[in-house]
Amino acid sequence: MHKALSGKRILVTQATEFMGPALCAVLAEQGAEVVASEQPLAAPDAAEAVVAQAGAVDVLVANLAFHAPTTPVTQVGEDEWRAAFAALVDPLPRLLRAVVPGMVACGGGTFLVIGSASALRGMKRASTYSAARGAQLAWVQAAGVELAPQQIRVNAIAQNFVDNPTYFPPEVQANPRFQERLAREVPLGRLVAAREDALFAAYLCSDAAHCFVGQCFPVSGGWVAR
Amino acid sequence: MHKALSGKRILVTQATEFMGPALCAVLAEQGAEVVASEQPLAAPDAAEAVVAQAGAVDVLVANLAFHAPTTPVTQVGEDEWRAAFAALVDPLPRLLRAVVPGMVACGGGTFLVIGSASALRGMKRASTYSAARGAQLAWVQAAGVELAPQQIRVNAIAQNFVDNPTYFPPEVQANPRFQERLAREVPLGRLVAAREDALFAAYLCSDAAHCFVGQCFPVSGGWVAR
Amino acid sequence: MHKALSGKRILVTQATEFMGPALCAVLAEQGAEVVASEQPLAAPDAAEAVVAQAGAVDVLVANLAFHAPTTPVTQVGEDEWRAAFAALVDPLPRLLRAVVPGMVACGGGTFLVIGSASALRGMKRASTYSAARGAQLAWVQAAGVELAPQQIRVNAIAQNFVDNPTYFPPEVQANPRFQERLAREVPLGRLVAAREDALFAAYLCSDAAHCFVGQCFPVSGGWVAR
Amino acid sequence: MHKALSGKRILVTQATEFMGPALCAVLAEQGAEVVASEQPLAAPDAAEAVVAQAGAVDVLVANLAFHAPTTPVTQVGEDEWRAAFAALVDPLPRLLRAVVPGMVACGGGTFLVIGSASALRGMKRASTYSAARGAQLAWVQAAGVELAPQQIRVNAIAQNFVDNPTYFPPEVQANPRFQERLAREVPLGRLVAAREDALFAAYLCSDAAHCFVGQCFPVSGGWVAR
Repeated sequence: MHKALSGKRILVTQATEFMGPALCAVLAEQGAEVVASEQPLAAPDAAEAVVAQAGAVDVLVANLAFHAPTTPVTQVGEDEWRAAFAALVDPLPRLLRAVVPGMVACGGGTFLVIGSASALRGMKRASTYSAARGAQLAWVQAAGVELAPQQIRVNAIAQNFVDNPTYFPPEVQANPRFQERLAREVPLGRLVAAREDALFAAYLCSDAAHCFVGQCFPVSGGWVAR
Repeated sequence: MHKALSGKRILVTQATEFMGPALCAVLAEQGAEVVASEQPLAAPDAAEAVVAQAGAVDVLVANLAFHAPTTPVTQVGEDEWRAAFAALVDPLPRLLRAVVPGMVACGGGTFLVIGSASALRGMKRASTYSAARGAQLAWVQAAGVELAPQQIRVNAIAQNFVDNPTYFPPEVQANPRFQERLAREVPLGRLVAAREDALFAAYLCSDAAHCFVGQCFPVSGGWVAR
Repeated sequence: MHKALSGKRILVTQATEFMGPALCAVLAEQGAEVVASEQPLAAPDAAEAVVAQAGAVDVLVANLAFHAPTTPVTQVGEDEWRAAFAALVDPLPRLLRAVVPGMVACGGGTFLVIGSASALRGMKRASTYSAARGAQLAWVQAAGVELAPQQIRVNAIAQNFVDNPTYFPPEVQANPRFQERLAREVPLGRLVAAREDALFAAYLCSDAAHCFVGQCFPVSGGWVAR
Repeated sequence: MHKALSGKRILVTQATEFMGPALCAVLAEQGAEVVASEQPLAAPDAAEAVVAQAGAVDVLVANLAFHAPTTPVTQVGEDEWRAAFAALVDPLPRLLRAVVPGMVACGGGTFLVIGSASALRGMKRASTYSAARGAQLAWVQAAGVELAPQQIRVNAIAQNFVDNPTYFPPEVQANPRFQERLAREVPLGRLVAAREDALFAAYLCSDAAHCFVGQCFPVSGGWVAR
């Protein structure tokens, strides 16, 4: 039986963190052969090694993980700043550089970044994270436009308020004040399920989504509309 | 065999026009029972009649058709203006009013507007059409936020440069100057296929897309990014 | 002494309503000769008459007034819908058509629409108003791009949470729940002063702003960022 | 005689580069006492030193200069990437950290970033630059929302196609192909004058602009609308 991702080999980075588990489960369910890399990517040579180990892939899902600091913007220090960019931003051009030649040789491919809506709307005590996430989205727009002629699709999800154990552990979700905040700030009135987010990512990995170029799709329960 | 839209009854308005044929084909292919209405909707009582004839539906796809005028902005007359809003804008609250009570009674539903990216980026000689399309998208944002608590999802596609016989007939596509324009203005380098657009609409009609609230998704080959 | 708007003749429509009083005061203060029209503009021939009475102007500020209804989106009726578009949307092409020829004859001019940020972000019970405001902004984008080569600048302010007696009368502002809402929803933590809004409009009417084309500037205390 | 910036002490960084000369001239013309720092800011301790040398200021204009590389996105190397972020991104939190305490002590202040519209719309061979500029704008949004309660206004200009000798030297402007590109891609049909850009920056430094919070204003002749 044909499934949407049958025949596709998909590398998911940092597969045990952030959206990794939900992504791997849903992509496999839809027929993809998932290469789940667990390696952290902050070290300068890590990205190239991860891509080399994976072998040829049709799709790379850049699921970069970094726990958002909550430092006041006037107290952000060099270490936090550098660590955020090392984890979230610097791996992108390295991953692309490593994976694109193989994709071009096979006639095209998809590079999907799991980004954040914190780059689209200001949040307090999130300046470091927002800045790094903003670099991701702007890079996706530029890379997408540049690589479209080579049939490489570069797009991003810009998510927020998506259920995942890193940002919204059970004890947070059980807190009535958190539920009030959800009701007040998120038009959806609940967290987006990890599976809903992963299903959308799966769609963006499928051939049906070849028409999208350098686009950033908010997945935030209406917290940002565009 | 389960398909993404199995068990869903979907009303597509003006099914022989604009994106209607591609939508009906793809929605049916994915298992939906498609109610293809051919009736024009500009008359004040048309929307209610179309919804009543359709009976209970899970999804309404507001595919409103109006051929974009190319009048210079300083020469736009009352008739053109009124006709555009009558065709593209005025039916929206009527369709919603008619269809939502039945959806709420069944626990929820989806209202998807096939809108235009001309509302997101200025184009010459398209002021009437852009204005009407802008009303659609802003209305979707507001309706989406308001109806989310009742499990009614209101979203829109904001398309441009999607292949369809109304806007891009074969003789236009055969014109080398049109192909140059595509290469220059549309990062994708080609028209988005009608089927690609319809597949995305089908995704937005599926249960997987319940997390989207009042959102406008550009489908324009990168002509607009957000 | 030279002021920013010295020598400019500026027509402000519906000058006693919405932002009219603040606009007239600030524009005059900056040296403009203000033509304050009080006439309502919903009637089809009103716009042309207002422009004819005003005589030649360098700038037209389309300050269109309509009190935002708060009808639930599923109960919006024909009369409300039609009245909103008649007041806020239909006058725009009429005003432009009437005023542009004189501006072109004088080498250029400015057409500034006082619009609303409700077109940029969804609000509950504001669907009619948002839709009409959305038509305004999309029209401004299209008209701006088309008329730039003739030195006609068409731009808009997209405001919300601006102090004015229509939307935020003293009794509303005195309500502690309103103040809480402001603190929660508006990053600025207060209403934008009418004068701040008018000063920005004055800037957009000045020669310094000739570089802006079809642009929509949010003035909403951070409620929308772009 | 009172001018818009009379009594304001404004620090402009890298005052001989990028928009520095135009900014210093216009800010002074409008009455500001301009502190023109020429020091590069990529070194980790440079920002703090520049702010210390300047003494108390009401406004800091973060005019960070880095010549945009044109490397294909798949060939971008570590050095280019690191240099761009060191020049354009890393100085922002350092400058803010150094300057805000003095501003808070005086009751408030303004932090204006001269950013780029390349963060808002994809461009080919501009991925490094776009990414760094995207970090700037997202950081501005977050910092702006966080610092508004302390009367610190953080905003940005997102410019492109603004006349300056770094990006558009006379020989480029004299090239007919460049003029064709302007006519095709920039609705304004010409470069935005450096002075127009600086006048808008001056407005954003004035008390009149206290109502803007974390906002990114495109100044690009209509190349991006929002």
